[in-house]
Amino acid sequence: MRSYLAEFFGTFWLVFGGCGSALFAASISELGIGYAGVAIAFGLSVLTMAYAVGHISGGHFNPAVSIGLWMGGRFSRKELFPYILAQITGAILAAAILFIIYSGTKGNIIDPSVAGAFAANGYGELSPHGYGVIAAFVTEFILTAFFLIIIMGATTKGANTKFAGVAIGLALTLIHLISIPITNTSVNPARSISQAILAGGNYPFQLWLFCLAPITGAITGGLIYKLVLEKE
Amino acid sequence: MRSYLAEFFGTFWLVFGGCGSALFAASISELGIGYAGVAIAFGLSVLTMAYAVGHISGGHFNPAVSIGLWMGGRFSRKELFPYILAQITGAILAAAILFIIYSGTKGNIIDPSVAGAFAANGYGELSPHGYGVIAAFVTEFILTAFFLIIIMGATTKGANTKFAGVAIGLALTLIHLISIPITNTSVNPARSISQAILAGGNYPFQLWLFCLAPITGAITGGLIYKLVLEKE
Amino acid sequence: MRSYLAEFFGTFWLVFGGCGSALFAASISELGIGYAGVAIAFGLSVLTMAYAVGHISGGHFNPAVSIGLWMGGRFSRKELFPYILAQITGAILAAAILFIIYSGTKGNIIDPSVAGAFAANGYGELSPHGYGVIAAFVTEFILTAFFLIIIMGATTKGANTKFAGVAIGLALTLIHLISIPITNTSVNPARSISQAILAGGNYPFQLWLFCLAPITGAITGGLIYKLVLEKE
Amino acid sequence: MRSYLAEFFGTFWLVFGGCGSALFAASISELGIGYAGVAIAFGLSVLTMAYAVGHISGGHFNPAVSIGLWMGGRFSRKELFPYILAQITGAILAAAILFIIYSGTKGNIIDPSVAGAFAANGYGELSPHGYGVIAAFVTEFILTAFFLIIIMGATTKGANTKFAGVAIGLALTLIHLISIPITNTSVNPARSISQAILAGGNYPFQLWLFCLAPITGAITGGLIYKLVLEKE
Repeated sequence: MRSYLAEFFGTFWLVFGGCGSALFAASISELGIGYAGVAIAFGLSVLTMAYAVGHISGGHFNPAVSIGLWMGGRFSRKELFPYILAQITGAILAAAILFIIYSGTKGNIIDPSVAGAFAANGYGELSPHGYGVIAAFVTEFILTAFFLIIIMGATTKGANTKFAGVAIGLALTLIHLISIPITNTSVNPARSISQAILAGGNYPFQLWLFCLAPITGAITGGLIYKLVLEKE
Repeated sequence: MRSYLAEFFGTFWLVFGGCGSALFAASISELGIGYAGVAIAFGLSVLTMAYAVGHISGGHFNPAVSIGLWMGGRFSRKELFPYILAQITGAILAAAILFIIYSGTKGNIIDPSVAGAFAANGYGELSPHGYGVIAAFVTEFILTAFFLIIIMGATTKGANTKFAGVAIGLALTLIHLISIPITNTSVNPARSISQAILAGGNYPFQLWLFCLAPITGAITGGLIYKLVLEKE
Repeated sequence: MRSYLAEFFGTFWLVFGGCGSALFAASISELGIGYAGVAIAFGLSVLTMAYAVGHISGGHFNPAVSIGLWMGGRFSRKELFPYILAQITGAILAAAILFIIYSGTKGNIIDPSVAGAFAANGYGELSPHGYGVIAAFVTEFILTAFFLIIIMGATTKGANTKFAGVAIGLALTLIHLISIPITNTSVNPARSISQAILAGGNYPFQLWLFCLAPITGAITGGLIYKLVLEKE
Repeated sequence: MRSYLAEFFGTFWLVFGGCGSALFAASISELGIGYAGVAIAFGLSVLTMAYAVGHISGGHFNPAVSIGLWMGGRFSRKELFPYILAQITGAILAAAILFIIYSGTKGNIIDPSVAGAFAANGYGELSPHGYGVIAAFVTEFILTAFFLIIIMGATTKGANTKFAGVAIGLALTLIHLISIPITNTSVNPARSISQAILAGGNYPFQLWLFCLAPITGAITGGLIYKLVLEKE
């Protein structure tokens, strides 16, 4: 039960911190944090919670990560459903509170055509800079695959595992530095679902990609690490 | 006595570094550090002092943190008052020295309507981007609650506690990445008091929120960690 | 075999992350990550893979590093060729996938005269800010020499070697903070080759410098550390 | 002898990396790294060399630090002169190589009235943003004092000393985030001397402040830590 709550709070923090910084602080003229600041925010949300509750739940905060770790032989199938439920619930609650706060501003400081509406993920017309469906799928697939390789490698026996929280958190920063312009960066279905619900419009209809690409990427990364990199 | 001095110097550094970077370096055209630079500065002020004097005093540098840790069962009530006194004294002395330095410039490089007057916290008319009182309260409450969850989690038995200074310092960076546009980010009554005194105007009349929201948030975060996440 | 695959994946990630962030995210108006964001991306690509696969292959991800470590007495000559082959193959595959993704955008968001065409390295007319061949050679030589000094120093007996991945990764960030305007920063022949092939034009004819300067610099750095700094 | 060479290479790297990034990359329109990037560069120059050669020489790279540590009881007086000589020599050599590289550009990408001529330190007319002599002295004094408190605290018995390189390096980043607009940030006489020589004009006549304030600040910080914070 403690581990489900850890995943709930961790994923809440990921969405509240990562999407919140995108929503409130990215697009402000001159002083705004820009895409680089959002990338740092997402990474730090995972880094901080990895050291706070990682020892309780493993610190997934992401359904694709849980599925990839299961395929990589690091996570039990019977924990999979409650973990994913806790992650999606935490993400949606965070999005709801972001909505309350965002409603408290007098003027619209967000330009949805540039930063993505309510930090939602998209491709084609809804990509922040007009990348098509193939570019979006390839990007999300590759990035989630390498995310899993890093997660599994940094936590394997023989690795310098004390630093796993740093490596995994900053991997998420790097992932965002590359791909915010392409898809607004998902690699995490829980994060995508929570934002698409609030953004509305056509965003929910594109959720299939931000579930399918991260999950198949995570499975591929988990299997690559297990089959060709892990010490037998 | 050493622990009170550690809190005094640590909170001085937090205000001098965090508010100082906001005051001197945030709003400069083209080259300025922006909100992201200020967020990094606040985080590094805590990270650096956590490793310098954290082993002496625990490294709170924040009355809300001391109160939250007390409620979470990690800090003794009889230390509470001298800690808070040391924190507020250090913060006010730092603000006074910032005032001396700031008086040494020839031209006004700060736009108070954007960056907040003398790095003071505010809501409504005094919010950097016009967020109202409810948005401000919810933001400060949630952020301080999660700050305490991270502090307690990163320092609990069984956690990778050597990294607590990194996790806690960078949590403060993340908190600022989200919320500078909303309230100029407090989560710390000592920091708020020190700036409101110098900023004057209506800022001191808004201090109630920047005491109440962080302290109730910290109590909530401390209790959440203790009751539902901590290993019994 | 595992170590060659580790070098392959690590160098893929370095090019995909570092050059990818330059290509997709650096030059976007207002929100773009700029040279500082690219510098962070390159550093984090090495930091993350150092903790993920560094225990497998040593985490070179760079032919100049492999050669410098060989001269410094840390790497065997018979591993040199397969390592370099794995690095160049990984880099080229990453560039190919970047090309696929980049083709998926509707408009040209890159200004090749400023950010470098397809993240390729250049001097003279092809330098991002018009630095000549001598400036370019000196810069690449010095930076790779110090990169090797840091790599050898951070991993030597008696050093605080658990932090080597942090120090080496962030050294690459620092190297980019200095030199992106000069040569678009190589210090890594595999990275340079992978981009010059795709950029075409005169870029491939300048590859001699981005092989010669990093490799001679790395040899110099490796020998300096071995001969004057290493404890005998 | 190895320790003098370590200080020589370390201080070379600090000036080459910190001042080099300021010179080449800070002021470029849109893509430049700005004051925040320079602050990160200075911090990473110390962080990287602390892990590379800190175990050889202690990793001072700064005459004020050596003097402050001597007053704090952590460094022997007979090592003081050779250390300072090595630091100043390394700094001047780095400045000379920066001059060679800078001469290799076709156009002037530096605006000396904003970023400081050749990364030199100044006050009054030569302050980047017009801060007077008192503001400059107070700033340099306070920042160097706290730099010493952090250095001594992070390396004292009972502290989490493995992280000292991170804390000390990032303290220098924080120091720059605050004070680049005020004095272009010295806290290090070797760095100031190396740049004033090349910048010429009135810069050398202001060197007294960038020796006196950091050294008296360092002595004060060293004594504060020793007398009131150190466990007896």
